[in-house]
Amino acid sequence: MTITITAFERSPDRGRGLARDMRVRWALEETGQPYDVRLVSFKAIKEPPHLALQPFGQIPTYEEDDLALFESGAIVLHIAERHGGLLPGDANARARAIAWMFAALNTVEPPIFDRSLANILERDEPWYEKRLSALDGTIRKRLADLSRRLGEADWLDGEFSAGDLLMVSVLLRLKASSDILEEYPNLSAYVARGEARPAYKRAFDAQLAVFKAASVG
Amino acid sequence: MTITITAFERSPDRGRGLARDMRVRWALEETGQPYDVRLVSFKAIKEPPHLALQPFGQIPTYEEDDLALFESGAIVLHIAERHGGLLPGDANARARAIAWMFAALNTVEPPIFDRSLANILERDEPWYEKRLSALDGTIRKRLADLSRRLGEADWLDGEFSAGDLLMVSVLLRLKASSDILEEYPNLSAYVARGEARPAYKRAFDAQLAVFKAASVG
Repeated sequence: MTITITAFERSPDRGRGLARDMRVRWALEETGQPYDVRLVSFKAIKEPPHLALQPFGQIPTYEEDDLALFESGAIVLHIAERHGGLLPGDANARARAIAWMFAALNTVEPPIFDRSLANILERDEPWYEKRLSALDGTIRKRLADLSRRLGEADWLDGEFSAGDLLMVSVLLRLKASSDILEEYPNLSAYVARGEARPAYKRAFDAQLAVFKAASVG
Repeated sequence: MTITITAFERSPDRGRGLARDMRVRWALEETGQPYDVRLVSFKAIKEPPHLALQPFGQIPTYEEDDLALFESGAIVLHIAERHGGLLPGDANARARAIAWMFAALNTVEPPIFDRSLANILERDEPWYEKRLSALDGTIRKRLADLSRRLGEADWLDGEFSAGDLLMVSVLLRLKASSDILEEYPNLSAYVARGEARPAYKRAFDAQLAVFKAASVG
């Protein structure tokens, strides 16, 4: 079985590990699965061959034998279900870890993603400061809730899981462009624990190598 | 096994089925699972007993014996995994149906949810028209992609699945406050097919009955 994922040939984050292939790379590294990467251009992701794999013209995609998947959350869950290391064996603990995956993507990520979009698209608008302040308020509410729930624990619910992998990934996007995360020391430490994992480092280095190679070429 | 979910005692959508308990009710109806509902106030969802179940102070929650879950996407997936009717038996088709669940919640819902929030919170801001127009542009991109992929099919990938359940739910939020959906006739028909399902109707009537009872009392 060969796993092939797609990633940007020149990531707009300049190799800072914020593109969504990073989450899939990290999951593959945590579960010890080798994988190939097919690099795609911004033009190619909007063309029919890629749209057949990813109807919304985004990365990453995941191909394995006759299965093709899209949506980084779904891909991480698929990897976690097939291989050990990202979901607990106990059925209830497994369901709770999956709940944290959805919480990362559907509750915590949207205002953080909006903030990074506003940062690019609305920076010169007269309302930018007010809009940013509204988004930061929403983000702080989410982080305060998350911080209270995490408390002094290392991970959100027992051992490191796919829920932590996605939550740390989402928080890293915030950390890259704001100091808000530092207002919550236990969340800063939580993200640092994620970044310190050997599998994270291997995944990060792999995506950075793509950017460096593209910059030289 | 008794299943108990939480819902608003007075839903801000006035019984139009847009609150996220609707998705869980629908999944329980599709799979034929009886359930109890515990109604909660806006005050109660921010207090410790509810926060213990739902760290972000939202509804719905799901309790079943000694398992407590939050996040409507995770709850729908849990129900779909335990009971027949919402996920295909074939492993690859099952993974693709789950990918559509994540696409509904992480790719299609965010701009639609932002639009309904902006509608409430930013209506009187000087930038409202421009912001709405930007959000509508993003929504149209997503819907154009979705429409092209759906084509003439009844459902997104084979039989009706939990992916369709969430996608229809997300599109219903848009339909409630905008005419954009009607620009895509195959998506309008897709949503109508969802609404016509007997399980959807039972779930809709159940949440509407809560709102009506609260309005009388």
